[in-house]
Amino acid sequence: MKITSPNRYSVILGNLGNTCDRFLPTGYKEARPKREMLREAASIPGIEGVELVGTWDIREDNAEEVKTWLKEDNLSCVSIIPDLFSQKRWGLGSLSAKDPAIRQQALDETRSVARIARHLGCPLINLWLGQDGYDYPLTADYRKQRTDLMEGIRQVAGEFPDLRFALEYKPKEPRTHSFHARAADTLLMALETECPNVGVCIDVGHAFVAGENVAEAAVILQHHGEKLFHMHFNDNYRSWDDDMIVGSLHVVEYFELLFWLAETGYAGWYSMDQYPYREDGAAAVRESVAFLRSVERLLTQDVIAEMRELIAVGDPTATTRWMREILFERPRP
Amino acid sequence: MKITSPNRYSVILGNLGNTCDRFLPTGYKEARPKREMLREAASIPGIEGVELVGTWDIREDNAEEVKTWLKEDNLSCVSIIPDLFSQKRWGLGSLSAKDPAIRQQALDETRSVARIARHLGCPLINLWLGQDGYDYPLTADYRKQRTDLMEGIRQVAGEFPDLRFALEYKPKEPRTHSFHARAADTLLMALETECPNVGVCIDVGHAFVAGENVAEAAVILQHHGEKLFHMHFNDNYRSWDDDMIVGSLHVVEYFELLFWLAETGYAGWYSMDQYPYREDGAAAVRESVAFLRSVERLLTQDVIAEMRELIAVGDPTATTRWMREILFERPRP
Amino acid sequence: MKITSPNRYSVILGNLGNTCDRFLPTGYKEARPKREMLREAASIPGIEGVELVGTWDIREDNAEEVKTWLKEDNLSCVSIIPDLFSQKRWGLGSLSAKDPAIRQQALDETRSVARIARHLGCPLINLWLGQDGYDYPLTADYRKQRTDLMEGIRQVAGEFPDLRFALEYKPKEPRTHSFHARAADTLLMALETECPNVGVCIDVGHAFVAGENVAEAAVILQHHGEKLFHMHFNDNYRSWDDDMIVGSLHVVEYFELLFWLAETGYAGWYSMDQYPYREDGAAAVRESVAFLRSVERLLTQDVIAEMRELIAVGDPTATTRWMREILFERPRP
Amino acid sequence: MKITSPNRYSVILGNLGNTCDRFLPTGYKEARPKREMLREAASIPGIEGVELVGTWDIREDNAEEVKTWLKEDNLSCVSIIPDLFSQKRWGLGSLSAKDPAIRQQALDETRSVARIARHLGCPLINLWLGQDGYDYPLTADYRKQRTDLMEGIRQVAGEFPDLRFALEYKPKEPRTHSFHARAADTLLMALETECPNVGVCIDVGHAFVAGENVAEAAVILQHHGEKLFHMHFNDNYRSWDDDMIVGSLHVVEYFELLFWLAETGYAGWYSMDQYPYREDGAAAVRESVAFLRSVERLLTQDVIAEMRELIAVGDPTATTRWMREILFERPRP
Repeated sequence: MKITSPNRYSVILGNLGNTCDRFLPTGYKEARPKREMLREAASIPGIEGVELVGTWDIREDNAEEVKTWLKEDNLSCVSIIPDLFSQKRWGLGSLSAKDPAIRQQALDETRSVARIARHLGCPLINLWLGQDGYDYPLTADYRKQRTDLMEGIRQVAGEFPDLRFALEYKPKEPRTHSFHARAADTLLMALETECPNVGVCIDVGHAFVAGENVAEAAVILQHHGEKLFHMHFNDNYRSWDDDMIVGSLHVVEYFELLFWLAETGYAGWYSMDQYPYREDGAAAVRESVAFLRSVERLLTQDVIAEMRELIAVGDPTATTRWMREILFERPRP
Repeated sequence: MKITSPNRYSVILGNLGNTCDRFLPTGYKEARPKREMLREAASIPGIEGVELVGTWDIREDNAEEVKTWLKEDNLSCVSIIPDLFSQKRWGLGSLSAKDPAIRQQALDETRSVARIARHLGCPLINLWLGQDGYDYPLTADYRKQRTDLMEGIRQVAGEFPDLRFALEYKPKEPRTHSFHARAADTLLMALETECPNVGVCIDVGHAFVAGENVAEAAVILQHHGEKLFHMHFNDNYRSWDDDMIVGSLHVVEYFELLFWLAETGYAGWYSMDQYPYREDGAAAVRESVAFLRSVERLLTQDVIAEMRELIAVGDPTATTRWMREILFERPRP
Repeated sequence: MKITSPNRYSVILGNLGNTCDRFLPTGYKEARPKREMLREAASIPGIEGVELVGTWDIREDNAEEVKTWLKEDNLSCVSIIPDLFSQKRWGLGSLSAKDPAIRQQALDETRSVARIARHLGCPLINLWLGQDGYDYPLTADYRKQRTDLMEGIRQVAGEFPDLRFALEYKPKEPRTHSFHARAADTLLMALETECPNVGVCIDVGHAFVAGENVAEAAVILQHHGEKLFHMHFNDNYRSWDDDMIVGSLHVVEYFELLFWLAETGYAGWYSMDQYPYREDGAAAVRESVAFLRSVERLLTQDVIAEMRELIAVGDPTATTRWMREILFERPRP
Repeated sequence: MKITSPNRYSVILGNLGNTCDRFLPTGYKEARPKREMLREAASIPGIEGVELVGTWDIREDNAEEVKTWLKEDNLSCVSIIPDLFSQKRWGLGSLSAKDPAIRQQALDETRSVARIARHLGCPLINLWLGQDGYDYPLTADYRKQRTDLMEGIRQVAGEFPDLRFALEYKPKEPRTHSFHARAADTLLMALETECPNVGVCIDVGHAFVAGENVAEAAVILQHHGEKLFHMHFNDNYRSWDDDMIVGSLHVVEYFELLFWLAETGYAGWYSMDQYPYREDGAAAVRESVAFLRSVERLLTQDVIAEMRELIAVGDPTATTRWMREILFERPRP
């Protein structure tokens, strides 16, 4: 007896490709053909969709071809992530850049991706604006740049009312401070656009780094008009976006998160967003999905009812005992 | 040539009293008569106001007497902080407690403090709801308890439209998670009350612990309807609310903060909120005020203009050079 | 088939008493008679020993009585923790205080506890020197004070060669910086004393706050002459010593830790050191022990062999899959 | 009147070249000819030496040429950093790799760099073993791999007794955990080699991330046989190795650090190790050196005497007042 309809799992395509860092920019692995990566994504148990990054994975000139591939592999295009972060020109920001010409280019790039999304039937643009922020004190105009950012989002969201725009927050990296840093400040900006099609994407690891309780962040977003539009899953040690396998470190937190996602009616995809620097990418994604499904399988209606009762009572010793029984004592299905 | 009108400095009275922690609950110092503490506050150069904590410092039964003392010492009562955190009954929360009887008591306590504030001519209630949060996963009902909290605030703010209510956020302590944890989530709740007299208090140290850039937090609050109602000053190592002397660790950040407070028209008090565990309280507060005034003195109109230009340009090497010149090279006034 | 001989569990007696913090110094609970607390400790399944704090729990004048009680309850006295942290006189340090008279008092206090330990047949003095550290830059003489500290430990350890002295490290609280801050710096000082009876105590939560991998810390200590003398167990969110129920947050890490404790021949007690601010103390300790025993039960010789193989191979996807199978798929015993 | 002889400043050559991260691996800038970078280094006021990275900057086949260039530019080669971190083969470790063939290659690579150092008259090999660590629980053999690491260092240090080997620690990045993570654990391993020519390099930013007080770390290293062999300077927000301009965030801490470096007789270079992602490299390094020299200039014998007195007394209010006077009130020289 599952909680509601089954969750749907997807993966950001790049998870299956090469990985690099500032010390080894050519990568720990090798670049691979996109066609092969898509096929591999489709082969991971549970994966039904992919997220694509603009420029890297999809452009206006290859959109038709990618559409065919997706169809062949029976994969949904869950979101497209405009590349507003991995080109020199975005180094000082995209939609919030001080240079108006760059802001214009960022708008155009986002529009291009939105057109591709329409063409693919992809319903969501995931805006991770990693370069939009600052590094040093007294170098950013918080007032003007945040307003520019908001207005850029409002502009493009207004032009594509049939698409949803999810703002993905992250406290830092590649800048020491992002403008979209935490759930609530990002929600505030989403609300400020007054566009019903602008919401927020929670990346679980980013929320850990932000010091948030990710389940509470989800509740806050859903409370303010069901603004949780998208979810990225991974794991880390809470101090940095390590982008590790889901559940490799946090277990209890994922029980709580999956409970509240169901409870607040989150209906989006459960999308894997990892960075398996040294591991086999497909194996890492497979484990992440398997972990989430293992938790999901345990969350029967009876168990959900128990969780509601624990939350209503709020006794940590009772909750901890229950969690221990679930993990160590109850017979396995 | 000062930035605008001079800033006004105040102190939370308890800064001058005994201090304790969980290992030494009887305190590192001795309890002192309130009358003496007030007189000492008044003697600190620059201090013109005090913040009082309900129950500890002021109750309906001594309000008249305290009013007389304040007048004798020529001190303004800048805010009153209801004691919704230092009694056994609030251990599991006050306005967000699961027990409705406790929520009722918390409302009544806040009303009592609001009446005292009116009597004293104190314009602001500072709501630090330290016990309103949770400790363990799966023990809090984020949805219901956050709504209860919002409604409690709305209720009492509606009853006292002549007073302002500042919600002071802090990520943790005494709970591992506070409901009012960061600037933006607290602002969201303030806005949700739809009461124009509900805003936010930034405690600089709490913002550091939250991983925020405190100047940006101030800008966000002011941007959304001038919702920065109050400021608490102290310093720490960014991982915990060490409540140290202002400027003992952070220097550059205070330049940026004072700039933006002026720039966004913050008109409230600059209030010291420290916890000098082992130091002489008055000396610690004196140093904090002296540090802030030292920065303030440097922020002439010319310097402000330079800062605006640095921010407009946004070159970290230029900003750093400027800061170095200010600290090490320019002749002292 | 258990790993070796069963682990032995104990608890710090104070876990079952009142709890307080700087906001509620009179406590969230009530003070309780020591006799009752001991009896309760003995009643917790698995608990066979207690740790006592000098002054609080045991003094020369009640040592005989406490000895009788322990015998009645069939409890071992696992360690005594000298009270070098909860009196005004230690506010600026004990064995490292700048004032030589305080250093002398700290030596005398430690000697007194050592004599009591001998009397009780307690083999270990746990030195948690929480006040020995500093708060602000440019206030501590790292060179002299660290040497004073080392010499104080050497002195008393030399006088009681029949007892073991475990130095318990913690990065901060009550000072912003402790001299015994991390595993390796504390080990360095233990080695510097050249006393074979001086070693280190790992408090798992302190290690998390220090950013350590606690299993690696244990390996390092054991590698340098089996210097892991004692273990304190609890859990936290990695940023502060929340002193929560063991396993309430970290699960995987405890599997790794228990593996390496066995692997490196740790033969000491598994002692609970929590601070159940708002929970029933006995219930919180019971859950902690139950969690550790749940992990312990799974660590059969076969499972240990699997873990050794995983570690030898070092493939994160294999380790994660294994952990998921253990937690979610293998039949429960 | 300067503290002792003037400090000597150097820079890691790569600071002046291209910069990249995992999102923009081709870089925020352009690659530049080494000859030009060297000349630029020599042009920065105060810079008298450079550190070179093996493979990137210097190899056996270009050592003679580089030697000529250094001479032309009147630059000392302060250290060489073997490239044991930026090649695919080191992805799972170098001297601690599980694969013995890789360990052998790492030894050979280090030997090659040591020979080059001899040829250049460079006295120090800086071993930053960034890949030697692990990412996930239950994937590393802490016991064996740490021992392999120690033995590798011992081996090569024994072969080149005329060179000094500085082990540079860093808690994480590129691995989630480094074996050389903090000052004391790295010192322990240096001591374990029993080679007098093995010591430790403090990178100030790494120490901040480790939660260390960097001045205390220096004191500890010097206390154990003058084991502070080298210093890397930069700045960050304490949670990640942001590699920013020195003094752009921390001011007070640098006063304390420079005091203790002089006090404990540190005689090595003051070397800049930044990563100016988006800034002009030379300008960023110039500011760092200028900041350090600004502090250095203030540290006259009289001021040093004041600092000794403040440390002996240990009153935070006195220290803070003194620091404020230094920064804001004393006439500038």
